[in-house]
Amino acid sequence: VRGWGLENLPYGAFRRGGEGPRLGVAYGEDVVDLPALARAGALPAVVDAPSLDPLLAAGPRAWAAVRERLVALFAAGTAALVPRDEVELLLPFTVGDYVDFFASLHHASNLGRLLRPDEEPLLPNWRHLPVGYHGRAGSVVVSGTPLVRPVGQRKPADGPPVLAPTARLDLELELGFVTGRGGPRIAPDAAAEHVFGCVLVNDWSARDVQAWEYRPLGPFLGKSFQTSVSPWVVPLAALEPFRVPGPPQDPEPLPYLRTRQPWGLDVALEVEVAGTVVGRTNARELYWTLAQQLAHATVNGATVRPGDLFASGTISGAARDARGSLIELSWNGAEPVALADGSTRTFLEDGDEVVLRGRAGESVDFGEVRGTVLAAAS
Amino acid sequence: VRGWGLENLPYGAFRRGGEGPRLGVAYGEDVVDLPALARAGALPAVVDAPSLDPLLAAGPRAWAAVRERLVALFAAGTAALVPRDEVELLLPFTVGDYVDFFASLHHASNLGRLLRPDEEPLLPNWRHLPVGYHGRAGSVVVSGTPLVRPVGQRKPADGPPVLAPTARLDLELELGFVTGRGGPRIAPDAAAEHVFGCVLVNDWSARDVQAWEYRPLGPFLGKSFQTSVSPWVVPLAALEPFRVPGPPQDPEPLPYLRTRQPWGLDVALEVEVAGTVVGRTNARELYWTLAQQLAHATVNGATVRPGDLFASGTISGAARDARGSLIELSWNGAEPVALADGSTRTFLEDGDEVVLRGRAGESVDFGEVRGTVLAAAS
Repeated sequence: VRGWGLENLPYGAFRRGGEGPRLGVAYGEDVVDLPALARAGALPAVVDAPSLDPLLAAGPRAWAAVRERLVALFAAGTAALVPRDEVELLLPFTVGDYVDFFASLHHASNLGRLLRPDEEPLLPNWRHLPVGYHGRAGSVVVSGTPLVRPVGQRKPADGPPVLAPTARLDLELELGFVTGRGGPRIAPDAAAEHVFGCVLVNDWSARDVQAWEYRPLGPFLGKSFQTSVSPWVVPLAALEPFRVPGPPQDPEPLPYLRTRQPWGLDVALEVEVAGTVVGRTNARELYWTLAQQLAHATVNGATVRPGDLFASGTISGAARDARGSLIELSWNGAEPVALADGSTRTFLEDGDEVVLRGRAGESVDFGEVRGTVLAAAS
Repeated sequence: VRGWGLENLPYGAFRRGGEGPRLGVAYGEDVVDLPALARAGALPAVVDAPSLDPLLAAGPRAWAAVRERLVALFAAGTAALVPRDEVELLLPFTVGDYVDFFASLHHASNLGRLLRPDEEPLLPNWRHLPVGYHGRAGSVVVSGTPLVRPVGQRKPADGPPVLAPTARLDLELELGFVTGRGGPRIAPDAAAEHVFGCVLVNDWSARDVQAWEYRPLGPFLGKSFQTSVSPWVVPLAALEPFRVPGPPQDPEPLPYLRTRQPWGLDVALEVEVAGTVVGRTNARELYWTLAQQLAHATVNGATVRPGDLFASGTISGAARDARGSLIELSWNGAEPVALADGSTRTFLEDGDEVVLRGRAGESVDFGEVRGTVLAAAS
């Protein structure tokens, strides 16, 4: 199956029937049962596990060894296959810390124009460092988990704040990466020693809650209710052929953020809302690469643990239909987005299903992150 | 020993010699070896553990049952005692998510005056909700861990940004609490069902790094390098006699933040720098109580997991010597703080030891959080 062959081999956790969770690899239309292969002696014991956690902790030599062994096994036709449509996919790893960046130039510029119309769109720090913040790791869920519209405190223009369901529920189309161990001070060109692989991330956002709460300590309740990730972690090794130079950076960043290797990722991305693809972009648009994100996050002495998740922030391109959030696509509600069924959207409505998709070339499919908006709890 | 008797019984994790970590309770000058008592049948199996994690997950009935049993055992003279000065104290629980609030009116007002001198000290949202953000859980360490001066990007007034050791290293005197499981929407008066106990927290801060990076997503590298907590988790049950009404709140908060029970905590706090106590305050000064912090953090649908850590933010009183950070005590460097040895401090210098202490009445000692500043890594 195109995108799910030997060039990809992404890892996930699955459950079938009443059995416990198991680590698997997607291959064609199936999931490969890794614990079964490990118990048969065909794979190292580190993959006889309910999730990716032990392999993440085992480090880059183990990552390479397992991948090499998998390719050899599958090429020889040996595999313990379970049809993908018979399994439940689970969160593939235990999330340690979750960091979200703001690494797209077009996204940051659009938000600046919308939220601070009288100022320069980019704040003075933006071109000097990858701006980011910590999100809530305990709220990270796997694709398919419904999104209950969050309630939060927001401030009408003409009155005191109220507690109410968000009226400006948004999605954010992001690419994330998950780490093994490392730091402090991970040199950007050493990122492959510490980054296991990538996932799609939908960082759901309540724009009205965020707007009222965010000064001076940043997003909190406007983001912490849920973050959805794709069930398949695409190994960085599978993305080797899709590493491209990042965009030119002006001014040149400080030495700790400079790279010699190409760290942009040519991954085509799209976001669908209620059946209509409303935005198409590419991860190579990111101004700050994953290697720079990781170098920045650890330059102060912080370390990373197996399962730490770093996301890019919304990825937007220059074109109007290349934006990765509804606040940009609808220009803060002023320009509703037309859907195929004739309806329009400014922000998400109850019942809307959001799907993010990603693909690197023809050979590496990221799959999807899906989530349907449910009405707020009463 | 005053402060460490039957009224307190705080939990910690310890290690002796080459043995593995064990859960303990501080009693007098000793640590009680809980796994030893559990294996002897005197305590439930949930305390036969290397840390507090299983007990946190077991929930409030188990918390009460173990405490009741401990009191009965110790009153009868039965105990497996190890002298406290013979053990190494470890991080007492695995930190899930770490949230830091900004809950002190005097602290928030002081920072507003210092950083935005031309505006109202308090931002418009401050009196309506407990402002907070997520910190880095993987950087939380136990008392005694040295603090290596962090390196970070900062912006001199007259030139481009540089990467350098922070020149404005600060401490923050905070009270934190650790949870079991719960949410979403934890009613504030239900906090005792979800809050296991309290610790002292030093949220080390690099003010120059923070000042340059924090717009618009809040603190990141300026805080994420290290956060130190006290080794003993004081059960909320031990703090029952010290629950007092919080300060008056004007305007009255929205209903989801209103409480009937008193949720202020009368805990005397002090901070010592290089041998001189430079600030003395009390946790009852906090404008937003822990019950309100927890209610706010879960109102949007977020849940809490065993080991989630919530800290108050710097606790400052109205008096000049009741401030809980050096940026306040030295008024952003303009008014150096005099130490007993004749030297002065604006921010922390290499070699300085910082000690936070807390005590509720005569009977409940929180112990200390210590940390010595080491020179930046070269």
